[in-house]
Parts: sequence; structure tokens; C-alpha cells
Amino acid sequence: MSIDITREYAHVLDQRDELATYRDKFFIADADMIYMDGNSLGRLPLAATKRVEQIVKTEWGENLIRSWGLNWFQAPIQVGEKIAQLIGAGPGQVAISDSTTINLYKLAMSALMLRPERKKIITDTLNFPSDLYMLQGCNHVLGGKHHIHMLEPADGMRVDTQTVLDAIDANTALVTLSHVVFKSGYMYDARAITDYVHKKGALVLWDLSHAVGSVPVDLDGWGADFAAGCTYKYLNGGPGAPAFLYVRKDLQKEALSPIWGWFGERAPFSFELEYAPADGIQRFLCGTPPMLSVLTMEPGVDLLLEVGIPRLRKKSIYLANYLIELFDARLASLGFSLGSPREAEQRGSHISLRHPDGYRINRALIEDMNVIPDFREPDNIRLGLTPLYTSFQDVWESIDRIQRVITEKRHLRFPATRLTVT
Amino acid sequence: MSIDITREYAHVLDQRDELATYRDKFFIADADMIYMDGNSLGRLPLAATKRVEQIVKTEWGENLIRSWGLNWFQAPIQVGEKIAQLIGAGPGQVAISDSTTINLYKLAMSALMLRPERKKIITDTLNFPSDLYMLQGCNHVLGGKHHIHMLEPADGMRVDTQTVLDAIDANTALVTLSHVVFKSGYMYDARAITDYVHKKGALVLWDLSHAVGSVPVDLDGWGADFAAGCTYKYLNGGPGAPAFLYVRKDLQKEALSPIWGWFGERAPFSFELEYAPADGIQRFLCGTPPMLSVLTMEPGVDLLLEVGIPRLRKKSIYLANYLIELFDARLASLGFSLGSPREAEQRGSHISLRHPDGYRINRALIEDMNVIPDFREPDNIRLGLTPLYTSFQDVWESIDRIQRVITEKRHLRFPATRLTVT
Repeated sequence: MSIDITREYAHVLDQRDELATYRDKFFIADADMIYMDGNSLGRLPLAATKRVEQIVKTEWGENLIRSWGLNWFQAPIQVGEKIAQLIGAGPGQVAISDSTTINLYKLAMSALMLRPERKKIITDTLNFPSDLYMLQGCNHVLGGKHHIHMLEPADGMRVDTQTVLDAIDANTALVTLSHVVFKSGYMYDARAITDYVHKKGALVLWDLSHAVGSVPVDLDGWGADFAAGCTYKYLNGGPGAPAFLYVRKDLQKEALSPIWGWFGERAPFSFELEYAPADGIQRFLCGTPPMLSVLTMEPGVDLLLEVGIPRLRKKSIYLANYLIELFDARLASLGFSLGSPREAEQRGSHISLRHPDGYRINRALIEDMNVIPDFREPDNIRLGLTPLYTSFQDVWESIDRIQRVITEKRHLRFPATRLTVT
Repeated sequence: MSIDITREYAHVLDQRDELATYRDKFFIADADMIYMDGNSLGRLPLAATKRVEQIVKTEWGENLIRSWGLNWFQAPIQVGEKIAQLIGAGPGQVAISDSTTINLYKLAMSALMLRPERKKIITDTLNFPSDLYMLQGCNHVLGGKHHIHMLEPADGMRVDTQTVLDAIDANTALVTLSHVVFKSGYMYDARAITDYVHKKGALVLWDLSHAVGSVPVDLDGWGADFAAGCTYKYLNGGPGAPAFLYVRKDLQKEALSPIWGWFGERAPFSFELEYAPADGIQRFLCGTPPMLSVLTMEPGVDLLLEVGIPRLRKKSIYLANYLIELFDARLASLGFSLGSPREAEQRGSHISLRHPDGYRINRALIEDMNVIPDFREPDNIRLGLTPLYTSFQDVWESIDRIQRVITEKRHLRFPATRLTVT
């Protein structure tokens, strides 16, 4: 089919978008600014602004310590139960706690301690580096006897499912991957992998950071063992908002966090001297949670629950397909290549455009063109499509301004690479 | 000397208090409410209210992801450097990161991995239970070969320094104690203990949760190895605000956190696949910090820096001595005993009053008398003295209202013990 690459057509697409009004539920200070980095830090929901004021003035300022008994103590579980509904998890399996890296550590260590005789850990080089560092740390703590097998993508953007399955053997304790990978946006067939992992007697840990709130996730349906993920990307929970973790119900009795703390205790206010882990998902909590950050995320999660993943996913795919069409028509001949799969079912909700001058094109977009994507080494410009507030005009403007950077050579005034931190 | 137990005298003491005006820098919704739990959750500084608004609207809402480059990325270190000034730590040794329990875990594991051949860990039963659980978790992760030696207080409130020293032997890897203990407020001679620990070739980890911002702490002077502590008590950092950690400069090269994450990496944005820890204190960070909670704590810390520990400590001792005098005159004959040392140099900034009916007296104070202390099993009513906003009249009112609870038998309408959580 022939496509319409005019700005007017983008406007028409926005008029047809049934989610268009959700954009008004976010704080937008500069209407000209094209924000394409909601996959890194989601926008501020207006309801969160109100909620913060209430948390600070009423809950902290007025109620003070009494708030722990009123609504704070239960919040990590209550907000967790809301996120559970976005990732196909039944009750009692999800909680908010700590950072993604720390949760991954707790879960990976749990898994490795459940399979002490097996020494192979499978992941891939597409995984977020912090996930890989975390695994290397687990191996260090456990005495260095594990082998971390990092699968390599054949085409730079994806590892075939079969390649993953072929790597799993009787010595494999844990397979851990990002469901949607952070650079290319490639999405694994989590069901098939989880299935095979279990056939081989191993355990699986999914990092859902780029998946939660953007693609259908069905943890219970997949039969997943462990999962964790960010709340500050598609959930719009606020900068560095604490992460969530999932442990399958029937694993909760045997699985133990390596970090034992009072929020994970059976009776935290009895002040017993010997640790007795709580029965449920609570046992994966440890210290006192940062309540401002925990509570502020709730309005963002509520917006997603209101819309529901199917409608979000539908718009996300429209946005992405439209972006790829504009890319083919306007950027493909300018030295760019598409760094994300073309097939919607293999893709999350961000698109990577690769260019040898990616770093400085990204700088020019931010500093000259009022577009905010982000850059990931060595050559990826990522455009995040966040269906609650990304419009078709945002997509059109992004492609248009990227094209102008190149044709007007605006990127050439920036250094070709990031200055190295020493 | 004879003491004046009249309300008028409390008023005179407040008039003489050179820090009295600092109370106006905090949000106080109910002037009749006597808040004696600042050692558990500090009050809201008015400056924090303004700061939160700026963080949310400007830094998150307007600047979005760019805030990481502007002021967020460095914040954990910058705020850490401020706290360093309150605990006698030179530059480059303190950072904000995660919860107290998680920091203690990182530091205890570091210590145990630095002394792999030694299998004894020394602590006491006065330590905060989460600290003890954390140690039990370390032992579990490391294969259960460690022995956790928990010293018992002879008098229920303190363990003599000599008892600690006597327990340290050639098999001791780690001594970890709360500098000021959470129930009785007893303060250890940290310098003497640190000294002896080093003589025996072991390492020391101080939990400063009840010490920071209330008593003089001199980590560099003591030669301490590791320390961590809360920011939501005397620092008024906000509910569950992330904790700080300290690692002595010359240990930083060899000490390794067990949790490896991108914020601890030498070059977090290079996205290298193999972890290379940062050189300095950064290596003890892991995942993305909860920025709302990290940044909101700064105004509270600034207030303490403005006043300085010597003046805070001076007032704290006045408040405590005054409280003890009123206690002797008005409560000692009503079944109470003092659960804190009488000697100021052995005491932090909270006072524990013990009573067999402590639980329900505490309930009556909160629900009937508009006094907010807190209760710690089995019989401790804690009264926190936070010199920035606790007045002498607050102390007078607390004692007066406690006496009225007893004489008017108000506590008898509450259950004698907490309902057990099942």
C-alpha cells in the first residue's frame, strides 16, 4: 500500500486515536518538545502531582509515624497487586521493593540456591548490562563456580528462540533474559522458553523492565518462576521509582531471598532475634521502603489499568508501524538502518534507529531540535512509543526533525562520541 | 539540686533555648500534639515541601530524562557528602543508596569476603532485629559456616565495652553493633571497640541509624571500616528515605559489594558486558536510586549542617536530663523504670521508659492524650528528643500526660498486648 507521509495525515491519525485524550492526563510543559524517551523515564501524570502533595503534607507532615499503620505498611503489596494485573499474575505474587537490580539479585540468588548442583546460568549479550553485572556478582558471592553463558545475537538485534533452547542443558540452573531487550526492542517468546526451561529442570527469571505496561505479559500463563522490572518507564512511576518483583506462588515456600530484613519477617514488630520469613511474597522485602517513591507511582499504574494492556498494545503497534513506514520513506537512504524487528509480534514498544553518527545525531536532536530520544552505545537512537501520551504527530515530528538534522548537517558540530568518563 | 517541675519552668527553658526558632522550620499541623517519635520518623521540614514541588514539577515534569544529566545522577554522592560532615567522614566515603538493611548486607558481606578464613561474627541482642536477620542471611548465603555470637546485656539496656572486647578473637571476622541501640538508647564506646577490633585483625560495621544527626560520630577518627544508617529519623529525610553507607577510603579498593549493578560500575553508560567496579564509594551503589526520596532528604540534612552536631548534642542532653528529672519526680513511683542509661555520655537522643503495661499506656497516649511516642516490645515506651523541634514544653507535656494516663487509669481500656499478626 502507498503511505501518506504528510504532517496532515499524522493529524488525521491522532483524530482517529481512541486513546488521544489520555495525553491530557500528563503534565506537558512544552508543547513543541517531542518526548520519545518514555521507555526510559515516563512522563509525570497530573494525578501524581496531587498525590505527592497529599503524601508530603498529610501523610508525612500531619499523620507522621501513624501513616505506617494507616496506609504505608501495606502499600508495597497493594501497589504490587495492581501491577500484577498488568503482567498476568494472580494475587499474592507481586510486591514493590528496592531497585530492579536488587530484586534481580534476590531472585537470581534464590534460584541458584534452589539448584545448588547446577552451575550454568544462561543469558544474552542483549540483556541490560546491570543484569549481567548482577549475575557476575552472584557468581562471585557463591564462590565463582558458576559459568555465565552469554548468548550472542546473530544479527545484532535478536537471539532466536531455538538458540536459547539449545543452550539449556541438565547443568543449567537459571535462564534469565529481558523479555523485551533494551536496545533493539526485540521481544522473546517467553512462553516457549519458560516451558523448555522447566522441561530441563531449570528456573527462569524474566526482566520485564521494557515489557511491563507496554506488551502483553502472562506470567502465570507462562508458568514463570521469577520476574522483576522497572516502574519508571511505561508505568510512569517517577524517577528511579522502586521496582516490582514476582515469585510464583508455589515456589514461595522454598525460595529464600539472600537479603533478610524486617519487612520480610513473619512478624516484623515482634522484634524476634531469629529470622522467620513471611509465608508469602512479603519474604522478598527487606528494609523500610522509600514511601514517597512507592506511593507516587500509584496514579501512573492506575492510568494503565484503566486503559488496559490490549488497547495500549494496539496503539503501540500502530505507532511503531507508522514510524517504520516514515523511516523507510525518509531516513533509510540517509545512512540509517532499522535496529528493531519489523515484525510487531517480535517487538516491544520502542524502536531503535542505528546510524554510525548516532551519538551526535542524538545530541543534535536534543540540543537543536527539541526532540528527546535516547542514545545507547554504539549507534542506537531509541524512540520510545508510550501509547498513553505519544501521538502520531510526535512520531511524524521525530522523523521529520531527524531528517532535518542530517540534511542540514546539524550533527556535525557535536563530537562524534561521548567523552569517556575516567 | 532541687528541680522545678512546673509547666512555667519548661516555658522558661524554651525561652532560653538558642535553637528554639528551628521549630518554625518544620510543618506542625496540630500545636497540641506532642510528637516524641522523631527518632523513628522525623518531622517534615518546610523546605522539603518546596523541594518536592520542584522535583516533581520542574525536574521530573519539565526536564524529564535530562534531569539525570543535570542534577540527579550525582545526587546520591552529593547528599552523601553532606551526611559525611555529620559523621566525621572526609570526602569520598559516603553515599546514599538503598535501605539500611540492604546497605548493611552489602557491607557485612564485603567484610566477610575480606576475612574468608574467619568464621565468627559478633553482635548483640540489643541490635535492631533487621540487622540480626541480615547477618543470618549472610551466613545462609555463604554456606552456614559462620557463627553469629550475640552478646546479651547484663542489665537489659547495655553491654559493657569490656564484654565486647573479650568476645573478639583471632577467628572474628566482623563486629557489628548499633552505635546507639534502638530500645534503650545506650551508646557504645565506638572508638575503643573499633580500636580493639583492628588489633585483632577483624573488621567493624557500625549501624548509625539512631546516632546520625543526634550524637557526635567520628568515623575517620575512630578508624571505622564500614557504617550505614537511616536518614528518616534525626535527619528528617522523609518516610523510608534511602540510607547512607560509609566505607573507609583505604578499604575501597579491596572491598566489593555482593550486589553488582550499573550505578556501581566504572562507566555505567558504556554498557560494557563485564563488570568493572568504580574506584570510589560509587562501587557500593547498584540500581537506579529512587530520586524523589533521595532528593527530598536534602533540606532536612541542610538544617542539621546549619546548626551543627555540637549544638544539637548540647540541647539533646539538656532535654534528656530534664526528662529524667521529671521522670524521677513524677513517674518513678508509678511502676515505671528508666530503660536508658542515666549518664549522658552513654546515651543517644531518646529515652526509654519501661512499664509492665507499656503497650497499653502507649496506646492511651496516642489515642487519648495526643502524645506520639512509640512502643518497642516488651515494655519500652520510647521518647525521642529531636533538638531541632522538640521543646522543653514537649518534654513536660509528655511526662504530665503519661502521669495522667496512669492516675486516671486511661490505659486499662486498651488490650494488654499487641494482637499477634498471624
